[in-house]
Amino acid sequence: MARIVMKFGGTSVADLDRIRNVATRVKREVEAGHEVAVVVSAMSGVTNQLVKWCTELSPLHDAREYDTVVATGEQVTTGLLAIALQTIGVDARSWQGWQVPIRTDGAHGKARVEEIEGARLIERMSGGQVPVIAGFQGIGPRERITTLGRGGSDLSAVAVAAAVRADRCDIYTDVDGIYTTDPRIVPRARKLAAVAYEEMLELASVGAKVLQTRSVELAMKQKVRVQVLSSFEDKPGSLVVDEDEIVEQPLVTGVAYSRDEAKVTLRRVPDKPGIAATVFGPLADANVNVDMIVQNLGSDGTTDMTFTVGKAEVPRAREVLEKSRAEIGYSEVVADPEVTKISIVGIGMRSHAGVAATMFKTLAEKGINIQVISTSEIKTSVLVGAEYTELAVRALHTAYGLDAPA
Amino acid sequence: MARIVMKFGGTSVADLDRIRNVATRVKREVEAGHEVAVVVSAMSGVTNQLVKWCTELSPLHDAREYDTVVATGEQVTTGLLAIALQTIGVDARSWQGWQVPIRTDGAHGKARVEEIEGARLIERMSGGQVPVIAGFQGIGPRERITTLGRGGSDLSAVAVAAAVRADRCDIYTDVDGIYTTDPRIVPRARKLAAVAYEEMLELASVGAKVLQTRSVELAMKQKVRVQVLSSFEDKPGSLVVDEDEIVEQPLVTGVAYSRDEAKVTLRRVPDKPGIAATVFGPLADANVNVDMIVQNLGSDGTTDMTFTVGKAEVPRAREVLEKSRAEIGYSEVVADPEVTKISIVGIGMRSHAGVAATMFKTLAEKGINIQVISTSEIKTSVLVGAEYTELAVRALHTAYGLDAPA
Repeated sequence: MARIVMKFGGTSVADLDRIRNVATRVKREVEAGHEVAVVVSAMSGVTNQLVKWCTELSPLHDAREYDTVVATGEQVTTGLLAIALQTIGVDARSWQGWQVPIRTDGAHGKARVEEIEGARLIERMSGGQVPVIAGFQGIGPRERITTLGRGGSDLSAVAVAAAVRADRCDIYTDVDGIYTTDPRIVPRARKLAAVAYEEMLELASVGAKVLQTRSVELAMKQKVRVQVLSSFEDKPGSLVVDEDEIVEQPLVTGVAYSRDEAKVTLRRVPDKPGIAATVFGPLADANVNVDMIVQNLGSDGTTDMTFTVGKAEVPRAREVLEKSRAEIGYSEVVADPEVTKISIVGIGMRSHAGVAATMFKTLAEKGINIQVISTSEIKTSVLVGAEYTELAVRALHTAYGLDAPA
Repeated sequence: MARIVMKFGGTSVADLDRIRNVATRVKREVEAGHEVAVVVSAMSGVTNQLVKWCTELSPLHDAREYDTVVATGEQVTTGLLAIALQTIGVDARSWQGWQVPIRTDGAHGKARVEEIEGARLIERMSGGQVPVIAGFQGIGPRERITTLGRGGSDLSAVAVAAAVRADRCDIYTDVDGIYTTDPRIVPRARKLAAVAYEEMLELASVGAKVLQTRSVELAMKQKVRVQVLSSFEDKPGSLVVDEDEIVEQPLVTGVAYSRDEAKVTLRRVPDKPGIAATVFGPLADANVNVDMIVQNLGSDGTTDMTFTVGKAEVPRAREVLEKSRAEIGYSEVVADPEVTKISIVGIGMRSHAGVAATMFKTLAEKGINIQVISTSEIKTSVLVGAEYTELAVRALHTAYGLDAPA
């Protein structure tokens, strides 16, 4: 007997047939003797319609009223799924954020979960009832409905799993697990049986958008074992767990890529102490997220400073840099959106030297020029020309022995 | 300065343009210096869709989950209207039933309002903020969402008006007031400036479906002054108030009709004490609502017993009567759905004799046979053949001097 939280996203509850299908899956777990709670998203398309209405009335709508409107999407699903479960003989009841309660801060539209009262849910579950909980929403200060931001239902599921001390949090989605890389680029990509939290965080941050980053962070912090699996097929998915649980650790777990960043270069910046602060301070103040940074010292006492920002943030970055032009003293700003960030991720990199060297050698052999390099404890990322994306990913996937047997 | 509750039904908030229109109307009252609270229904069509989903999943769905699902319709409207109001500079916030709270009993799907906390609403209103309250819903025992049944938003509005001690409750709808009779039958029907609560109750019960009956009962009990007016046109509507407020009281205020009833006759019932109880006891037990009753004594010690029930209830009535056939001892049951109940209503009838006589004389002159008569203190109803409906209504409207000047 285990205690399981099952989470179903918008496409899994898109219509009544799919809701019935979800009910059948839940029933199977209940009949296997497990204690089950379910977290659901809005039926797909519903949230978009609600957001559209708010935006049409006012682009600058009150975030509190926006939350009141969009939270109804999940509320509808909870009631319908509870009915579908009861219809096939499973005791169930719906729970909204304010009923649990799922307490959040007051940051409407992107609230943080502060506390979930698990006692009543546990009591119901041990009595054989399935709580069907609205994802994506909570209750903030002054009894206002809050929402957790896009993808927030994953976060709700992990938070509920922590609150009821679940053995596992199963995230049902439209992919069937986490792969060594994007199977659309590498047909021989393998589904991973298990990924460490830290690896998942790095993979998520570089574009493997299976799980919302905040939900992985929370799972790691609260030691919630997460499984990603398909709601349409009937096979095991991928576990996201503590690294201690992963018996065989490859050097590199996956190859990820992101086309979301652009490269910005400041030419001929005077090389003097404090110059980095002069460049990046104003960008941070303007909420421009800077990722990779590299600085090349020239022979004439000036340096070219290169960094990456989100493609959508290039105009804002230019504006900020223009304002501090006098202070920084650069000659020109060059932005290049035609770049891709390629990363190798693996907790094995912590204890093994030379992992990154294989990356550089592999890319060199394919004639791919590396524009920027950045590293973390379990990740090495390089920026390359966008046209090399597929070539680089495939070569690295093979080089690190990740290809499935032919 | 007055304190006003404004209620807008589904057609008045059917889309964003109409919601903006409602916001403009609310703003006008606020700018006139009034304290305003608003009660809204779901956007028209939304509730039907939600009900359909519940019913498709299970015809015998859990009423608690049904309430959770359908209450979202009003929630969406509250948020959108709050945004629309803020956009034109009116301070506003949405309130769901559980936030106010509007406490009800646990009769899900048709709950009764037990108590509304008015203090916080009054505080907001006197601070210049407009509470936008979800109609049709409340919170029952164990923190479950309840709904008040179809048309329940009228009830919500009157209950809120009582709770905040409003000077008036304005019900905006798709008709512009209460008429002396149905203008589709009598083009010269007149809009009434004021109607007494008791009259409105009798008019509602015989088919003038402008206001939900329970909301009129509550208004009468709590002395809430109600105004019915159009949300599409800009002119005063009809007041529903205490009879003391109505200065000039005509003998007859209106002529109403109902095609919802059928006539049932039990032939040759033995005329003995207790026979009425034998007939109507089992019908009441089976929840069959009996309205008009008449009994004609024959010369042979038997009697024909005639009464009316809702047309939809005829099969159930037949079934009940069949079961008690031996006990009652009638010869046959005859049901006739081709009847209409015509009523004249007016508090003036209390103090004036001969009002009903004019009705009988008028119908006789037109050659209309009266099948059953029933009377109350302020109403006289007759059952006539359905084909005489328009003729009877027109003749009575003229006879009681209700026609507008030509």
